[in-house]
Amino acid sequence: MITKLISKIRRTGAPIVVGLDPMLKYVPEHIKKSAFAAYGETLEGAGEAIWQYSKGIVDAVWDLVPAVKPQIAMYEQFGIPGLMAFCKTVNYCHEKDLVVIGDIKRGDIGSTSEAYAAGHLGQVQVGSKVCRGFEEDFVTVNPYLGSDAMEPFLKVCAEEKRGIFVLVKTSNPSSGELQDRLVSGTGNGEGAGDRPLYEIVGEQVAAWGAKCMPEEGSYSYVGAVVGATYPEQGKILRKIMPKAFILVPGYGAQGGKGADLLHFFNEDGLGAIVNSSRGIIAAYQQEQYAHFGEKGYGDAARAAVLAMKEDISAALNARG
Amino acid sequence: MITKLISKIRRTGAPIVVGLDPMLKYVPEHIKKSAFAAYGETLEGAGEAIWQYSKGIVDAVWDLVPAVKPQIAMYEQFGIPGLMAFCKTVNYCHEKDLVVIGDIKRGDIGSTSEAYAAGHLGQVQVGSKVCRGFEEDFVTVNPYLGSDAMEPFLKVCAEEKRGIFVLVKTSNPSSGELQDRLVSGTGNGEGAGDRPLYEIVGEQVAAWGAKCMPEEGSYSYVGAVVGATYPEQGKILRKIMPKAFILVPGYGAQGGKGADLLHFFNEDGLGAIVNSSRGIIAAYQQEQYAHFGEKGYGDAARAAVLAMKEDISAALNARG
Repeated sequence: MITKLISKIRRTGAPIVVGLDPMLKYVPEHIKKSAFAAYGETLEGAGEAIWQYSKGIVDAVWDLVPAVKPQIAMYEQFGIPGLMAFCKTVNYCHEKDLVVIGDIKRGDIGSTSEAYAAGHLGQVQVGSKVCRGFEEDFVTVNPYLGSDAMEPFLKVCAEEKRGIFVLVKTSNPSSGELQDRLVSGTGNGEGAGDRPLYEIVGEQVAAWGAKCMPEEGSYSYVGAVVGATYPEQGKILRKIMPKAFILVPGYGAQGGKGADLLHFFNEDGLGAIVNSSRGIIAAYQQEQYAHFGEKGYGDAARAAVLAMKEDISAALNARG
Repeated sequence: MITKLISKIRRTGAPIVVGLDPMLKYVPEHIKKSAFAAYGETLEGAGEAIWQYSKGIVDAVWDLVPAVKPQIAMYEQFGIPGLMAFCKTVNYCHEKDLVVIGDIKRGDIGSTSEAYAAGHLGQVQVGSKVCRGFEEDFVTVNPYLGSDAMEPFLKVCAEEKRGIFVLVKTSNPSSGELQDRLVSGTGNGEGAGDRPLYEIVGEQVAAWGAKCMPEEGSYSYVGAVVGATYPEQGKILRKIMPKAFILVPGYGAQGGKGADLLHFFNEDGLGAIVNSSRGIIAAYQQEQYAHFGEKGYGDAARAAVLAMKEDISAALNARG
């Protein structure tokens, strides 16, 4: 799936992922009205509204970008009907041949981690049959529990040729509270040191990835999440994990700009894919795109993708 | 809800939580046969099997223990039908007046964290109505993203009088890879130090909890997860977070014993609740309880709870 992601990035010329974070406050009134008329102001109504809204975004941008990143929390908050909307969205994105990165940030141990890996990227055995629960191509994973949490994902990634993005340095203001702590390089409490924790996690990503590659020398199935809001850290992590694709959140609404992104890419112009959520899916609420109107939210999203593509291309070309 | 948990611990004399991790390999054949006959060897069939199995466990132990901890991954792996079984299980446990700890290990930032907090512990606004997605009393939360991830949960806990257990030192073998790293005490990269990361997280738990209490001097709404497999660390963390309830996994199948648990409790005999999953729900598969047979899996679970209660009581009484 990393191979497909790369070939789609080359074809579209856009190392961009559209983050589907369908909060109800982004959903245009006409969609909510119609969903609530059909299902009431209920979880079912909310599920219908966010599904129709997600579909509209996908219809507007699918030919411009290689991938989408549905944020499961925004669906899960509406319980079962919300998660049904998540499933419909994932399946619809597959129909459009988009690479689907499930932003699920799961992480657990042993058999529990196996269950998450099987349920989101692999298959589950039910009696004599195999079934699939959710069907993402990639998922995001939290590393706090250590390798135990990762091994089942690595196994499924190798079997299914799917992938993970491990949280290394997240885009939020308080990410440094734990991630920037200076630690020993040797691990397991064998002496203090002077390297930030995210570098250690970056090294783990590189090591996990080395065991999990489609072919010698390629990018691995194990990527990393590093926020656009931390370009200096991105520069260092780019070197520590040369074969890891970096999923870069924090562009646009969170403050990251095209020029900040340079360090996340390798010399081959690859190695990073930049996410924008609100900046694209709620573009119509911004002054710049307000002329599209609520009903033109898809066109506004498309215009925002094109502007983002231009911004990133300009920055990459300026690097030469 | 922490007040209810404490009063139920006192009433049952059992600081025990039964972990509902309904893997299909634990489900007795007669339940699988009946579920697959009705729904086929499908996700629906799996969902029905784990729901019936979970219900049987709850029916067998509900009067002995204060709380249950359904592990959402074991339901989520079966997609929507699995999560419907999770909801049915949570609702059924509420009917039995059990405190429900959703083992979801979520953690994200900003509005995404708000969505998880609202969806699992709080309420979501849908038009002019408020609805509830999942309805746990407590959930487990991952701290790797920092305070940003926690604030929305703290807000909901205070509003709803529900609670969280933050992962501090997990029970698995590789938990030390990040959690045991020696770090600076000051944070944000201001110099190396000599304290393990889990102590820093423990201090954060104490600080978050101080802002989130049902009343002065009580236990807070913010608890911690510390594995029974690490009793020495438990002793230190008990002191760092005197007002945090500790959820202690790793008893039984993972190797923890009653005597290991002493340090997790405060002098008042409270402050900890010990989880056992496989050791109870699949007790019938152990030699010791094999005489109950597959169909007696509930009775075997009940016997295992009673033995666990005795083991913990003996250890606490020996302390005097």
